[in-house]
Amino acid sequence: MAATVVSNKRVILKRYVTGLVSEDDMEVVTVEAPPLAVPAGSKTVVVKNLYISCDPYMRNRMTYHEEPSYVPDFVLGEVLVNFGVMKVISSGHQDFNAGDLVWGITGWEEYTVIDNPETLFKINHPELPLSYYTGILGMPGLTAYGGFFEVAKPKKGEYVFISSAFGAVGQIVGQLAKITGCYVVGSAGSDEKVNLLKTKFGFDDAFNYKKELDLEATLKRCFPDGIDIYFENVGGAMLDAVLPNMRVAGRIAACGMISQYNLEQPEGVYNTICIVTKRLRMQGFLVFDFYDKYYQIEEQIARYLKEGKVAYTEDVVEGLDAAPAALVKLFTSSSIGKQLVAVAREHKAEHANFI
Amino acid sequence: MAATVVSNKRVILKRYVTGLVSEDDMEVVTVEAPPLAVPAGSKTVVVKNLYISCDPYMRNRMTYHEEPSYVPDFVLGEVLVNFGVMKVISSGHQDFNAGDLVWGITGWEEYTVIDNPETLFKINHPELPLSYYTGILGMPGLTAYGGFFEVAKPKKGEYVFISSAFGAVGQIVGQLAKITGCYVVGSAGSDEKVNLLKTKFGFDDAFNYKKELDLEATLKRCFPDGIDIYFENVGGAMLDAVLPNMRVAGRIAACGMISQYNLEQPEGVYNTICIVTKRLRMQGFLVFDFYDKYYQIEEQIARYLKEGKVAYTEDVVEGLDAAPAALVKLFTSSSIGKQLVAVAREHKAEHANFI
Repeated sequence: MAATVVSNKRVILKRYVTGLVSEDDMEVVTVEAPPLAVPAGSKTVVVKNLYISCDPYMRNRMTYHEEPSYVPDFVLGEVLVNFGVMKVISSGHQDFNAGDLVWGITGWEEYTVIDNPETLFKINHPELPLSYYTGILGMPGLTAYGGFFEVAKPKKGEYVFISSAFGAVGQIVGQLAKITGCYVVGSAGSDEKVNLLKTKFGFDDAFNYKKELDLEATLKRCFPDGIDIYFENVGGAMLDAVLPNMRVAGRIAACGMISQYNLEQPEGVYNTICIVTKRLRMQGFLVFDFYDKYYQIEEQIARYLKEGKVAYTEDVVEGLDAAPAALVKLFTSSSIGKQLVAVAREHKAEHANFI
Repeated sequence: MAATVVSNKRVILKRYVTGLVSEDDMEVVTVEAPPLAVPAGSKTVVVKNLYISCDPYMRNRMTYHEEPSYVPDFVLGEVLVNFGVMKVISSGHQDFNAGDLVWGITGWEEYTVIDNPETLFKINHPELPLSYYTGILGMPGLTAYGGFFEVAKPKKGEYVFISSAFGAVGQIVGQLAKITGCYVVGSAGSDEKVNLLKTKFGFDDAFNYKKELDLEATLKRCFPDGIDIYFENVGGAMLDAVLPNMRVAGRIAACGMISQYNLEQPEGVYNTICIVTKRLRMQGFLVFDFYDKYYQIEEQIARYLKEGKVAYTEDVVEGLDAAPAALVKLFTSSSIGKQLVAVAREHKAEHANFI
């Protein structure tokens, strides 16, 4: 195989992004693939990418940071990287064999050499749609589960508000909160999403934040007795509206602040005094904080899926050529469901909409 | 005694405060004292107030709130209330006897009937200056100890920043942090305070925030490796400058935000995204959270005082007539040490400056 020239389509960062990310910030190019067989003595693995995930935090990596950010900046002219679902095609690592299905960090391309295979997770439920491992069974699912149970520490009967509730993480948090016996309200950016949150995802209530003139009053209307848990995906003005609506000893699980990622100058938050007066705990976290619990959480979520206790939607585009537009959709509120790219479909016809 | 008319000087709220509190917002009046003997069957106690404490959080209670705040608003024409040191002169409660020295919530007046004596703490170290029970052995000490050890959860070698470090709570936190083996920097509002923090209170470094043009750069200079723990007393622009200087997994113990209390419109905080990217925990607390640990903490702090391990300063004014001006001093950065009012000195000449 080493002598065969295999091409490798990939999405590269064409320029550092300022303001709203656009398709023109990326470029789809075709280069020669790396050797598809791992050299003798190497502990790397070579994967064929099946699905890659579009996630809001990638925006941060597309801007040049003078000082290192919490995740490394993407490199100009180099392939984008993010979570994906892959098939191992060659392995020098004892834990992996050719044919294994895995998920973890990979390139936005057809073939990737993974230098640190110990960061990959095995896929234990291939009977479920493989693409779910970019979402409810992958990074967003682990983030939602860990952020809700480990950081927000919910109790039955508590009042939960989730912003960007139709996002990959928000959808899952809302359903976990309902399973826990909480009262759950979500915000989203379109009437269609609001409707789906209430009908398909079991939220007690939801609102379209774009139609609300006074978010603080809206939250007061939705939560006359206040909010115990705010699962924060948005930041800025939404956080500011939430703070005065929090109950004493409330928790804010700070997962992301998507409203701020494309701004040159972030919005001010004026009501931070509420953190003192209401004795709030606001805590940030990353998915890596929960890596050691992944396989337990995978089992739990797989069970919920099979029992029909959680719903899930995806917004899948076909092929790497469509990947830049798919990433941009995250920030224009136009993805309906977990946004991902099918790079290669070779496993089975799994998109029969499981739920 | 019931037939004797005893007078009771008191400080009342004359008008609700907007903006900076001034002496004119209060008035010193003399009224008839309540009966100084508890009626048969009552479980109240009557106290003679010896020292009353001036604390920044009182400012919040002087403003009218449409919705209930975390502490009740003071009532127009009624006596101010806050922590003080008192002698029980009559008791209907089984836990207290005439002559007991106690501290807790009382009125800004000579004599007060305490309806809920179970909120009072006994003073177990009367050999120390009694006035210290308005400070290092009272509410500020308990706040500092609980906020630092229970909320910030310090580890030896960590980098600690304390704003309003010369304040009643900040001074104590800094010294507890040094005892714990942390590197400690404080901010204060005058060169005199900065100097005292470094010479008398053992801070590794300190700066006068009024002389710094770029607080974010100042903190970067003081903490080239970042801040593990920020003990927040100030809020607003200082919080904004701290956030980018926090280290991953840092903690912000949010005790107060004195810079904001007199503002009609609070300052914006723009760097809240750091809570996500650095996985920070920012947590508010009130002294009541630590009430159940008070007597242990009293013993620990009394031991530190006797061993000379902590220094302490007070700014004492004499008599209730001077109380309004003393409260205003808190907000003009002109108190040097714990601000309090000696209402009556009858115990002993304890102000020999213990340390």
